Amino acid sequence: MQVLEVELADRSYPICIGENLLENPLLIKKYIQGRQICIVTNATVAPLYLERLKNVLSELQIDQVILPDGEKYKTLEVWAQIFDQLLDARHNRSTTIIALGGGVVGDMAGFAAASYQRGVDFIQIPTTLLSMVDSSVGGKTGVNHPLGKNMIGAFYQPKLVLADISLLKSLPIRELSAGLAEVIKYGLISDYEFFVWLENNLDELMRRNTEALAYAVKRSCENKAFVVGKDERESGLRAILNLGHTFGHAIETAQGYGNWLHGEAVAAGIVMASDLSCRRGKISSEDLDRIITLLKRAKLPVQAPANLSDEQFLSLMGVDKKVLDGRLRLVLLESMGKAEITNDIDVTQLHQTFAACRAAS
Amino acid sequence: MQVLEVELADRSYPICIGENLLENPLLIKKYIQGRQICIVTNATVAPLYLERLKNVLSELQIDQVILPDGEKYKTLEVWAQIFDQLLDARHNRSTTIIALGGGVVGDMAGFAAASYQRGVDFIQIPTTLLSMVDSSVGGKTGVNHPLGKNMIGAFYQPKLVLADISLLKSLPIRELSAGLAEVIKYGLISDYEFFVWLENNLDELMRRNTEALAYAVKRSCENKAFVVGKDERESGLRAILNLGHTFGHAIETAQGYGNWLHGEAVAAGIVMASDLSCRRGKISSEDLDRIITLLKRAKLPVQAPANLSDEQFLSLMGVDKKVLDGRLRLVLLESMGKAEITNDIDVTQLHQTFAACRAAS
Repeated sequence: MQVLEVELADRSYPICIGENLLENPLLIKKYIQGRQICIVTNATVAPLYLERLKNVLSELQIDQVILPDGEKYKTLEVWAQIFDQLLDARHNRSTTIIALGGGVVGDMAGFAAASYQRGVDFIQIPTTLLSMVDSSVGGKTGVNHPLGKNMIGAFYQPKLVLADISLLKSLPIRELSAGLAEVIKYGLISDYEFFVWLENNLDELMRRNTEALAYAVKRSCENKAFVVGKDERESGLRAILNLGHTFGHAIETAQGYGNWLHGEAVAAGIVMASDLSCRRGKISSEDLDRIITLLKRAKLPVQAPANLSDEQFLSLMGVDKKVLDGRLRLVLLESMGKAEITNDIDVTQLHQTFAACRAAS
Repeated sequence: MQVLEVELADRSYPICIGENLLENPLLIKKYIQGRQICIVTNATVAPLYLERLKNVLSELQIDQVILPDGEKYKTLEVWAQIFDQLLDARHNRSTTIIALGGGVVGDMAGFAAASYQRGVDFIQIPTTLLSMVDSSVGGKTGVNHPLGKNMIGAFYQPKLVLADISLLKSLPIRELSAGLAEVIKYGLISDYEFFVWLENNLDELMRRNTEALAYAVKRSCENKAFVVGKDERESGLRAILNLGHTFGHAIETAQGYGNWLHGEAVAAGIVMASDLSCRRGKISSEDLDRIITLLKRAKLPVQAPANLSDEQFLSLMGVDKKVLDGRLRLVLLESMGKAEITNDIDVTQLHQTFAACRAAS
């Protein structure tokens, strides 16, 4: 097992990465201070892992909330069910909420932990590659609103993240790919050496080689932790983590949450951001091809949907929270392995990118 | 105008106390960083002050949410309306949410500010005495759940509190009294000198003498700021602010939120806590009489409702968040002007207090 310490002053916490961690009772119990826990999971994950987790913690008061699976249920209304369970079972302020699931479960359970009695302990057990490399670091929690993704939430840090690589064995291939989109993103925004490693090891990752996956998770979390440690509340630098996300959010919103996986939308968004960076002369067309090739090898979409017009894109990007006072701000590539944040966008180039990156209808 | 600085490291902020502050555009504008504001108020306050506030800020994009008035509307569902307005009017992360109203408005607007895009700026303009002396300091925000008060929320500090004493002129007498319950509480828990001042000046306060009210607001906020500054997240000392609140919450819950005003329930709760403190030999029966007399002069209830049985009290106190791992913890008086937190409660004495403090049926 490897341990990565996320350094955030009095909110620092460890990410434990390894095999069969869920079976290790000592690991998780060390971080539970009270006698009550509430496991938040979803209908897909519960049959696979819920009983195993409950067995490990059997001497505690265990309550559970099984949410419906999917981004479209990441709403205030579904979130409120967590409080119904917590209050019905009389959980007090020393309770611990454990998220067992992917990003949606983690976001909702984390925001519930942030808000229940104004904040209780929170442990994350991500069950997807995406949530291991994305939600494990950064403390972003929240729910969607019909008018925008992640518009309601909190910055809230867990006490512990358990990234049990063994759980990835049962992950559907489409979700493995979605996670790789974020992994590749880290290489592009801040770690060119890692990008090259990914070019050399993508096949091993797709074959779910445990060692390769553990390395990719650790290096992704290290990259994210470095950025978040410098800018916990996203006043500046942290925005580089959103490479591909402004385009990606527009795609997700237009298609309806949950039809494209988040990572899939991000992959197409990364291509768009890279295409625009290429038009700006920041990366070469050969580098653009390398990015597209790597995403394709990870079985990820590299084009926006055919039915999404320029006007729809711009409108959907307009409610994005990365917009400050009405100006469009984008995360683009300054070079391979280095991101830049800019609001100096050439609208003509932007339309060229829309045209170049749209699938044929 | 007097300014009290609440010291909380990078979350420090000023409370401005004085007359006609709402008319002073420079005061409030200094704390607005973006070009958008959203005023959250209620149906009672809006006709009195909303236009005045909007006139002062007329060059900004102003949106407004007018909530129904009353504790019973302090729910997740009503709270969600604030996000509908914010997103519909495309408020970005540099928006400022202004609470114009009493404690309910402040709690809901503050929790919305804490949660909108994971945190935007927040300004409080309390319009009741209770909210001036209670919600102005401490950063507690949130909403109620059918199974418990303030069970969902956040600690979130405003950028500015404007305590405009002139607004108290239109306050219903019952609400003025409710505010005085908390004012008297500060004297009891941490400031005996202030308690004596209140005994000498209560008639002036009831007559709404501006100077006396400004002094009482300032001294109350100072007392609260001192306690909160030592314990922002209520791990220990801060609990003394809850003198009378565990009993009071039980009364409020039993009677249905909003039938008793919060301050009224707290007043009866203070009598119960003082009665129990007297039975424990911590204060004399003469001191207990002084407390009851002062609360009566402020036209506050000093007895629990006749229909609230011991069993109901205990059950309702059991879901209170001041209970840690099932043990009853109460804030009582160690002496006049000094609170203690104890879980060493003699159950027989507690039942005697229930009996002694219940109104005749």
